Amino acid sequence: MSDLASRIAQGRGDAPADLVLRGGQVLDLVTGDLIPGDVAICGDRIVGTGADYEGREVVDVSGLTLVPGFIDTHLHIESSLVTPFEFDRCVTPRGVTTAICDPHEIANVIGPDGIRYFQEASERTVLDIKVQLSSCVPSTEMETAGARIEAEDLAPLRGHPSGIGLAEFMNYPGVIYRDAGVMAKLEAFEGGHIDGHCPLLSGKDLNAYVAAGIRTEHEATSAEEAREKLQKGMRVLIREGSVSKDLEALAPLLTERTAPYMCLCTDDRNPLDIAEHGHLDYMIRTLIARGVPPLAVYRAASLSAAEAFGLKDRGLIAPGLRADIVALPSLEDCRAELVFCGGVRVDADAFAARKEIPAVGRASVHAPRVTAEAFRAGGNREETDVIGILEGKILTEHLREVIPIRDGDKLPDTARDLMRIAVVERHGKNGNIATGFVRGFGLQKGAIASTVCHDHHNIVCVGADYADLAHATNRVAEIEGGFVVVAGGEVLAELALPVAGLMSEAPFEEVRDALVSLRAAARSLGVTLEEPFLQLAFLALPVIPALKITDRGMVDVTRFEIIA
Amino acid sequence: MSDLASRIAQGRGDAPADLVLRGGQVLDLVTGDLIPGDVAICGDRIVGTGADYEGREVVDVSGLTLVPGFIDTHLHIESSLVTPFEFDRCVTPRGVTTAICDPHEIANVIGPDGIRYFQEASERTVLDIKVQLSSCVPSTEMETAGARIEAEDLAPLRGHPSGIGLAEFMNYPGVIYRDAGVMAKLEAFEGGHIDGHCPLLSGKDLNAYVAAGIRTEHEATSAEEAREKLQKGMRVLIREGSVSKDLEALAPLLTERTAPYMCLCTDDRNPLDIAEHGHLDYMIRTLIARGVPPLAVYRAASLSAAEAFGLKDRGLIAPGLRADIVALPSLEDCRAELVFCGGVRVDADAFAARKEIPAVGRASVHAPRVTAEAFRAGGNREETDVIGILEGKILTEHLREVIPIRDGDKLPDTARDLMRIAVVERHGKNGNIATGFVRGFGLQKGAIASTVCHDHHNIVCVGADYADLAHATNRVAEIEGGFVVVAGGEVLAELALPVAGLMSEAPFEEVRDALVSLRAAARSLGVTLEEPFLQLAFLALPVIPALKITDRGMVDVTRFEIIA
Repeated sequence: MSDLASRIAQGRGDAPADLVLRGGQVLDLVTGDLIPGDVAICGDRIVGTGADYEGREVVDVSGLTLVPGFIDTHLHIESSLVTPFEFDRCVTPRGVTTAICDPHEIANVIGPDGIRYFQEASERTVLDIKVQLSSCVPSTEMETAGARIEAEDLAPLRGHPSGIGLAEFMNYPGVIYRDAGVMAKLEAFEGGHIDGHCPLLSGKDLNAYVAAGIRTEHEATSAEEAREKLQKGMRVLIREGSVSKDLEALAPLLTERTAPYMCLCTDDRNPLDIAEHGHLDYMIRTLIARGVPPLAVYRAASLSAAEAFGLKDRGLIAPGLRADIVALPSLEDCRAELVFCGGVRVDADAFAARKEIPAVGRASVHAPRVTAEAFRAGGNREETDVIGILEGKILTEHLREVIPIRDGDKLPDTARDLMRIAVVERHGKNGNIATGFVRGFGLQKGAIASTVCHDHHNIVCVGADYADLAHATNRVAEIEGGFVVVAGGEVLAELALPVAGLMSEAPFEEVRDALVSLRAAARSLGVTLEEPFLQLAFLALPVIPALKITDRGMVDVTRFEIIA
Repeated sequence: MSDLASRIAQGRGDAPADLVLRGGQVLDLVTGDLIPGDVAICGDRIVGTGADYEGREVVDVSGLTLVPGFIDTHLHIESSLVTPFEFDRCVTPRGVTTAICDPHEIANVIGPDGIRYFQEASERTVLDIKVQLSSCVPSTEMETAGARIEAEDLAPLRGHPSGIGLAEFMNYPGVIYRDAGVMAKLEAFEGGHIDGHCPLLSGKDLNAYVAAGIRTEHEATSAEEAREKLQKGMRVLIREGSVSKDLEALAPLLTERTAPYMCLCTDDRNPLDIAEHGHLDYMIRTLIARGVPPLAVYRAASLSAAEAFGLKDRGLIAPGLRADIVALPSLEDCRAELVFCGGVRVDADAFAARKEIPAVGRASVHAPRVTAEAFRAGGNREETDVIGILEGKILTEHLREVIPIRDGDKLPDTARDLMRIAVVERHGKNGNIATGFVRGFGLQKGAIASTVCHDHHNIVCVGADYADLAHATNRVAEIEGGFVVVAGGEVLAELALPVAGLMSEAPFEEVRDALVSLRAAARSLGVTLEEPFLQLAFLALPVIPALKITDRGMVDVTRFEIIA
């Protein structure tokens, strides 16, 4: 019997279902009804609800409410600092059954091979990973990345079953000013799904960007911005990352009226944050606690996400759809007791049964060895551009401070919280080193360095002391990338991320523990930020206003110009 | 400049828009907001809203509210009794800018050539006609149609730009019992869109039908039935045809909560009904008058329809989407003052500019000449199965009446409203004649006959007098099909429908006037039904319960059996 015939037969009860979930109730996201009765599953599909079924296997879900598996509509798995297989093990038990990822972090380091690695991994994880094709590698022409991906490089990556379309189109100036390379990509994907990224864009600029056929977006940081994007026909993804946190600001916009057109995403979330707070499950319970109706929240977490990205095979607990099911003791608390993903019960056996593939992108850090002198700041004007950190946002302020020139240098100043920031090119292309100032870390001594440095993933470091900056930079290169905290010439804590300088090959629990040590070490230097490494990583991303730094210098993102 | 580059440039205001609608307000179907400002259009696309624009052409829409063009999610254009070009002229000025049609009426007469005719017509109409591929030709094995379409016949029809997927899968017993031919079609279209048709199906039978991958459905006739279909993940299309009227029953289910998952359709609506009441515009104002919130109604009429059928390029007045726009003086009254379809203003010039193609399917009626004796009823049991008409529904009652046998015949009885009904095979295949009884016309004399006889489109006739039945049947064959009213051996009124016995080549206004005469003539015979010809047409459709008649005999649809 064909799969389809089996589904029909089992749905009708002409044959026992492969699996029956008995004794629970289903939250129907269309009507809002709670529906008692068995859920019958044939292979990876639901085939019956609201009726009694016989099953070859029966799982008791008495007292539990069943909701569709959660869909993370935009994330970079690399930001979990672990491989897709460890990410799978980390979030699937929390109810995340689909992750729409953009592998542009690894793609910026090793190019299309990085995207192919995620495509191949997606065939083997329990979680259904959808792999968007990275649209902007590098994100702009104002940085040195390890690779460059043009429209013609994307063509051979199309057609994989994990594909949806083109990932976040970050180069929004390139869109609205109709840059030739950008147009080639937009035209190649015209009529398909193109995901967006246009922080603070509004009015006619936003009209132009949306007119390019871009339909989903996750960079709105205020309800007003999100509302305009909805009005222009974009599906708004509420993001709550480890550093970019928009849930609070956008929660008031998520109502029963708008929920069919809004989704949830995490963008960048690390295993420590996941352990301490959660993943989409955290967003769900927090939104409900903020007063958003549960029906609206669960729609955004699954049905509306499936609709927005054209995943017609999921989003409801209904016949014919993927058996992606989360069993909850409480809708409000959203702590998964059981999870089924494509009909597979999510447990240690399911993870053990995966046929993993080796990671790619080892030994990718090719940085010059640096000395303390490399971190001196140039310039002969005392009025100085300073990056102002907004905690919990990846947007920054463009500050201007008067900093005295001493011996042809402008020194870090702990009293005024003016720290040296630097980016060191590490792809072996040109050895660029750019320096500048940042306010907001609260550092009193030492330095921290990282190869997680969006999106070019050069080495970014911040510090009060040039020797420590040099030490941290050299050390992070030695360990094939990762995070390093240095003070007084000593490494206080470190985490190696040898997969493209972005991911560990260790279990997520080890990475989580290392992050605890790193956070403590950073605090011992005086750092006041909750997530210093992630906050640091985004200071290098020149597609998020207002002031950023790349290996080519400080970037005024509002004007899309490197500051001379 | 490419089309895409032009859209971006005009959206940004870097070049004047091709067309600007100035002075109105847009009803945003996502937020419910009313948005002032110009609407800028480039070619067939909207490129800007909520801002001031310069345009090469400016249309004043002051005082008007703009809503997205209406989408009829399921209809048979043949039921308008005119060609697609006349249908276009009839409904587009009312705001219908997309019609998702199933050409299965003409396909039952002449096969794939009929579908191809609609595909080719769709390239030339102002209205955007989407042509679903007819899934069930014939609808069952209990009738003689002019053609038969198998899975392999559908393959060459795929890929046309008007295509969405497979049209209403009426053979629901074939689905749930997994008939081989049915499975071949379902498997060929698996993962694509398959439209449904499963009146009164419920519980595990409905689970099995939905598990087959069928996602949209328009046969729910009660709120309870529709609610279960929604709960099972189907998008419910509220239908208000000329005879099958479900709006009143389903209106209470259409709320702001459910509207994203409900749509509107007309299925079968004739030009007289359209002239007297309207089309989707009638449904919209009637639903609002019944108390459904306007936002819910307009969503169902456009945005939700686009979502349900995967038409990602329409459904909102937003940049990047088709410029399908209806300008209304009143949202509640819904009478279009101006309509734009794909950026084209809908007016006489637009219709005149179309390059029409000749109709197909002339001279398709090949019926035997019949005499009065052909209409005698067989059987030797006085308890008789009688079709009980439910006015305004295509469902019927299965009545059982005692009718005395006289000279080996059971006579019509005007006192008890028991009329002879007969179906005469007219495709030149076998000359079958089946007779039976029907209650509900109110006929006192004469007969009416028609070649619009779902879906096999044989000749169906009903009458009080055998000679008049024969006369009507022979006359309708002489005029290449159509409608005929006969009494006392005289033709009182007729309308020729020579295109496959289904459509006139005359302007819709002439057809409308002919329907007025036909209705008057039918009333002169005592007919009490509002739409006797359409009601008659559906008495022959053996996929709608409970009792029907085909050329092979009376059909118990509940048991899916011909009554011996």
